[in-house]
Amino acid sequence: MHPHSLVALVTLLALLTYFWMSTRVPLARRKCGIWPPAMTGDPELERTIRAHYNTLEWLPLFLVSMWLFAIYWSDLVAAGLGAVWIVGRILYAVGYARDAPKREPGFLIQAIATAVLLFGALGRIVWVLATVGA
Amino acid sequence: MHPHSLVALVTLLALLTYFWMSTRVPLARRKCGIWPPAMTGDPELERTIRAHYNTLEWLPLFLVSMWLFAIYWSDLVAAGLGAVWIVGRILYAVGYARDAPKREPGFLIQAIATAVLLFGALGRIVWVLATVGA
Amino acid sequence: MHPHSLVALVTLLALLTYFWMSTRVPLARRKCGIWPPAMTGDPELERTIRAHYNTLEWLPLFLVSMWLFAIYWSDLVAAGLGAVWIVGRILYAVGYARDAPKREPGFLIQAIATAVLLFGALGRIVWVLATVGA
Repeated sequence: MHPHSLVALVTLLALLTYFWMSTRVPLARRKCGIWPPAMTGDPELERTIRAHYNTLEWLPLFLVSMWLFAIYWSDLVAAGLGAVWIVGRILYAVGYARDAPKREPGFLIQAIATAVLLFGALGRIVWVLATVGA
Repeated sequence: MHPHSLVALVTLLALLTYFWMSTRVPLARRKCGIWPPAMTGDPELERTIRAHYNTLEWLPLFLVSMWLFAIYWSDLVAAGLGAVWIVGRILYAVGYARDAPKREPGFLIQAIATAVLLFGALGRIVWVLATVGA
Repeated sequence: MHPHSLVALVTLLALLTYFWMSTRVPLARRKCGIWPPAMTGDPELERTIRAHYNTLEWLPLFLVSMWLFAIYWSDLVAAGLGAVWIVGRILYAVGYARDAPKREPGFLIQAIATAVLLFGALGRIVWVLATVGA
């Protein structure tokens, strides 16, 4: 009845991780005293905003790829790779707030998880279209 | 055959509300004479851009939560909460363009609607996984 | 078994097009020597960032409309309009990096494709709700 509950769970946990990043922005604003709509003026605030926005940039790549992977391959494997993505994103946000180069290990982890999901789904979809037809 | 037509309708109305916010940006640009790619330089333009972008930030949280709520609970209740979200977002954008603190009531309305959708879906998904299994 | 494989394929190709735009940002940064988290300071860098972000702004409008069009009308027509969107977006990004007014033809192409998908889906959903009920 609900064949994708694991991926649905990981989706909401990923969105909560993303939401947690957005809550770090007002805390960084309080620390440096720069208020909306200003988005610049303090390096730590700018890094905190960029960590949040870079995650927003990747959300469509990640979420769509994870769901297509779950539909065309396996719910369990997709959810596992999604959990790896979440861990990578947490490392990324915590590292980026400290210093720009410290965002790189976490970024790499989430990028690899996304690439496996995206190209895994893409390969299977091309194969389905080539063998079974549209 | 189409069990989620109400949520599909509210989804497109929410996207049109979001699109309407984006059309306010060129109008604010004309008023102050600041052109792309510049994103700063006039407080009203910056507030209009931020209203649009904050809505973009919340779209994945809102749309994904509404659809999972519709699938795991009720299409009708999800669509109703989605309509509340749209009203909150319109109040937010109109208020924010006037003055930064005037964005708060609308923001609160859409945040509560999103939270009910997200945690409602999350609770049911955890329950399904615990009782029925993956 | 997989009734929307064509739209799934176009979805991943659109996301790869979007990802390709994001890879142009570090190249533009190298050219002008401006590093994260800074987002301003060189017109070509700013235009490259804006091309990427404008595509992010339109992704929810485009992807959701294409899928609802595929579900309520036709997978093949939705995928064809999606391919038009991708062509428009490539013209847009290449043009915008050169000069701000050169982004306009590509922008128009992708906007028309999105509008047909969105209002096509919206019309059919309203018709389904009016004749068959929720």
